[in-house]
Amino acid sequence: MAISYPTPRKSHEKKIDRSNLGMTLESDIEVTNQYYYDKKIAVIHKKPTPVQVVNVSYPARNKAKIVEAYYKTPSTTDFNGIYKGHYIDFDAKETKSATSIPLKNIHQHQIDHLKAITEHGGIGFLIVYFKAHNEYYLLPFDVLYNAHIESQTKGGRQSIAYQTFKEKAHLIPFSYQPRLDYLKIVDQLLIKPS
Amino acid sequence: MAISYPTPRKSHEKKIDRSNLGMTLESDIEVTNQYYYDKKIAVIHKKPTPVQVVNVSYPARNKAKIVEAYYKTPSTTDFNGIYKGHYIDFDAKETKSATSIPLKNIHQHQIDHLKAITEHGGIGFLIVYFKAHNEYYLLPFDVLYNAHIESQTKGGRQSIAYQTFKEKAHLIPFSYQPRLDYLKIVDQLLIKPS
Repeated sequence: MAISYPTPRKSHEKKIDRSNLGMTLESDIEVTNQYYYDKKIAVIHKKPTPVQVVNVSYPARNKAKIVEAYYKTPSTTDFNGIYKGHYIDFDAKETKSATSIPLKNIHQHQIDHLKAITEHGGIGFLIVYFKAHNEYYLLPFDVLYNAHIESQTKGGRQSIAYQTFKEKAHLIPFSYQPRLDYLKIVDQLLIKPS
Repeated sequence: MAISYPTPRKSHEKKIDRSNLGMTLESDIEVTNQYYYDKKIAVIHKKPTPVQVVNVSYPARNKAKIVEAYYKTPSTTDFNGIYKGHYIDFDAKETKSATSIPLKNIHQHQIDHLKAITEHGGIGFLIVYFKAHNEYYLLPFDVLYNAHIESQTKGGRQSIAYQTFKEKAHLIPFSYQPRLDYLKIVDQLLIKPS
């Protein structure tokens, strides 16, 4: 029997590679965001996973119980918020490949959304985790967009090379607290826009 | 950057009876946001309603079906996004009362969230619909916060009076397109912060 899994957002039930931490990229970011919030550094939240509710039952005196629903494709990115007065917007992606991340991992509507965001003066990017290297990168939207445009051309590359990350993205330090200090990279972008 | 609003056509200038439209405050805002997006005025989205998924089944060859889930209390407000480089954050409330809106309609975590947002340089507010008057108001966060603080004091008022809206909030024009032009009010707030 073919088993199809939901979009790996609520991946708590899935087997996780990072056995030491038992955490996913997403929860690493959420822990980081909580740290930023507690320290009054930034207010950045993950949006809830969108669900199409079809049927709800009301067990006696209990709260509404959803008995039929389906995961929907998000129309935006997963994370947004405010940092030093700037609108911040990003998505998190991971790849097992040591050499590249396939562009099919990044949906057209996410490209469109981030493009709109940056056009309105926001800061848009991806956080990409290369499992094989155990490295996290902040990929500025303009680098992503250029790769996306190239992929639309005949014979154009359909992925972003690891080498491109080395050259044009920014390695995010992974530490105890905050776990993934991506705003340190945003600080650099604010000083010297790419 | 000057934003030019389209001149409403004569036939649409008359007041619109909401009962004919069969729409809710929330969908009025979503229609407005779509207009803003299409016209490249702003990018503002409603966050999905958070759902706690307990059980998922996988019918053969079908996508994941959620068979047990519950609504969760949102930890933030419903709407956020970017306008002229500013982070925008708000919630929508409606009241049947002609004289006030009860403060219990506004959760503590929403107050906390909007407070954090404004401290970081964002623009936070409520859009409040007084059904009895068929009027929509943009209530700046500082007015909400003052009312909230008063409600915490002994014998303090537990609602915000309609009169306070007349004096300290901003009437949002309701028209055909955009339906609820709340960014016109935000423009005023940007020029003269309250």
